[in-house]
Amino acid sequence: MSVPEPIRWQNGELTLLDQRRLPDALEWLRVDNIETAFHAIADMVVRGAPAIGIAAAYALAEAGTTQARKRVASDNANDFVTAMHAAGARLKSARPTAVNLAWAVNRLLAAMLAEMARAADAELNGGVITSAALASALRDEAEAIHAEDRAICRGIAEVGVALITPDCGVLTHCNAGALAVSELGTATAPMYLAHQRGTAFRVYADETRPVLQGARLTAWELGAAGIDVTLICDNMAAQLMSEGKVDLVIVGTDRVTANGDVVNKIGTLGVAILANHFGIPFYVACPSSTYDPDTARGSDVVIEERNPNEVTQVQGVRIAPADVKVRNPAFDVTPAELVTGIITERGLVLPPLAVNLAALLSTH
Amino acid sequence: MSVPEPIRWQNGELTLLDQRRLPDALEWLRVDNIETAFHAIADMVVRGAPAIGIAAAYALAEAGTTQARKRVASDNANDFVTAMHAAGARLKSARPTAVNLAWAVNRLLAAMLAEMARAADAELNGGVITSAALASALRDEAEAIHAEDRAICRGIAEVGVALITPDCGVLTHCNAGALAVSELGTATAPMYLAHQRGTAFRVYADETRPVLQGARLTAWELGAAGIDVTLICDNMAAQLMSEGKVDLVIVGTDRVTANGDVVNKIGTLGVAILANHFGIPFYVACPSSTYDPDTARGSDVVIEERNPNEVTQVQGVRIAPADVKVRNPAFDVTPAELVTGIITERGLVLPPLAVNLAALLSTH
Repeated sequence: MSVPEPIRWQNGELTLLDQRRLPDALEWLRVDNIETAFHAIADMVVRGAPAIGIAAAYALAEAGTTQARKRVASDNANDFVTAMHAAGARLKSARPTAVNLAWAVNRLLAAMLAEMARAADAELNGGVITSAALASALRDEAEAIHAEDRAICRGIAEVGVALITPDCGVLTHCNAGALAVSELGTATAPMYLAHQRGTAFRVYADETRPVLQGARLTAWELGAAGIDVTLICDNMAAQLMSEGKVDLVIVGTDRVTANGDVVNKIGTLGVAILANHFGIPFYVACPSSTYDPDTARGSDVVIEERNPNEVTQVQGVRIAPADVKVRNPAFDVTPAELVTGIITERGLVLPPLAVNLAALLSTH
Repeated sequence: MSVPEPIRWQNGELTLLDQRRLPDALEWLRVDNIETAFHAIADMVVRGAPAIGIAAAYALAEAGTTQARKRVASDNANDFVTAMHAAGARLKSARPTAVNLAWAVNRLLAAMLAEMARAADAELNGGVITSAALASALRDEAEAIHAEDRAICRGIAEVGVALITPDCGVLTHCNAGALAVSELGTATAPMYLAHQRGTAFRVYADETRPVLQGARLTAWELGAAGIDVTLICDNMAAQLMSEGKVDLVIVGTDRVTANGDVVNKIGTLGVAILANHFGIPFYVACPSSTYDPDTARGSDVVIEERNPNEVTQVQGVRIAPADVKVRNPAFDVTPAELVTGIITERGLVLPPLAVNLAALLSTH
């Protein structure tokens, strides 16, 4: 078995694994127009910041190809550009707070305009600006984004693989895996590479309430790849650590601030404190693009409070009094002093994190 | 609103609140025979060690009354005793590992035999041993067990109420409340008393995966009593503590060993470590009967591993891959050094716990 790539791009056609149906069903959604892509992103057919960006990029590229084919008879590059900007705006509105989504769409639009400018120069020399050429530029940029993301995951895998020693136990939280990113994922990347290289080890996946990404996604994708994975409830991590079953923790992150604080899925802070208590190394897998030197510390980040229904219901089944008060912070902040190291595609960053992150990642 | 007593005993008739239906429905089950009682205990209509004992005691007492009424015409005390022993054995088999269940049934049977012996002495002086008198002894003993349990809860309330200061935030885990014990519960007893005395404070209830006693029971019973309760997922406790929302933790316990280690619902150890990290006091409410001086330390206690379905399903809905490996320890052990104090009905026990527990509780 192997991990299914959740974003398929074949012959210029985009297909997404419907992650809402996992792990019950492996269903694919053919995304052949912008409205379908909008709903796939808004309704979380695809989730995980990098994966959303890649999916949106391919959706826009395919829309460009479709648009260009229609225009063979009466081609007008300006109309094409207008249509693509409208399509991009629509895609970006699907999840307005997803940074990678806007970033990916903007990269494609910029590539299209660069091609437009290049072709305009060429036109002066007798060429023409065709929609087909602009659509080709969109496809190239989308493929470049995906390729870069894969390369980053591979880089994290190479840097982190040495941490996975034979017969060790690795605890992870939430899903920073192939389903959220691409190919190897981030937190999972060292695990996939260690497994490919024949290292035997165990993974414990926190179920990750309230949305259960650990139970539904991480346990599923690691299992599908043939890795020895055991699912636990979040509150069992301390017991497993006390039994000596956990040798290291690797989690992903949504943002690492200048001082090395780690913003990640709710529950990460608790795992870090437990690891610290038991003397277990706590690592964070972080693409260099997720390092945010412009935010001084984690306490500067506003923590999103999500819908109470996520806590009071599980898969639509109510598990608590209907009118109960609920807290539902989506993220927490793990202070830098609880972090053993940050695994980036450029190298392993050790404390003091503020200095060493800046030294490795602030030079582009 | 007030907390419904989950065990009703009126005019010699037993009725149980069906806790499986909480919080969706408030349904009562009339328990008028041993088979109904057996299934109510086995199927967790009633749960929580003390509550199970009390329910079984009343069920046996009511069975005695029914039996005695049948026998008015041809009374035979020996047949009555035989019938009660059979009924007691059946009740004890409903949950063989529940210590309070066997303890309560055995106490009733001993009281019946004592009455038998007393009456036999009286018979020498011209009296008779009637089933009615034996049944009366059973009822008295059942009511005594319930009264003692209520008194213990009130004692814990009186000892612990000073810990609940105005505007404080209290975190609790699982359900050591009125539904599990009687009247005031154990961990909840100081909260109920503080509330009755007009102290305003907040409670955070961990949902307590996998069986969700915190979401289904604690959040419900505290809310029904008018206490300001907020439900959180287990993995959110660290975030709330980091926000300064939690001033103390109070949990119940299944067993406190001689050295002061605390065996309690899975997840308790994690909460204790978090509290320790943030410098938040961590208290354990413990009836003196739950202190086990014959077990040296927590690591001597075998931790029950329960059905994986509890983790992979929530209320019958599957949330994880069907064939995933699961760990599901029912309890964990919090080492004595993480415990700020143990609230017993005889007084607050502070460190060194081993010495002070023995001094307060080993004298009967």
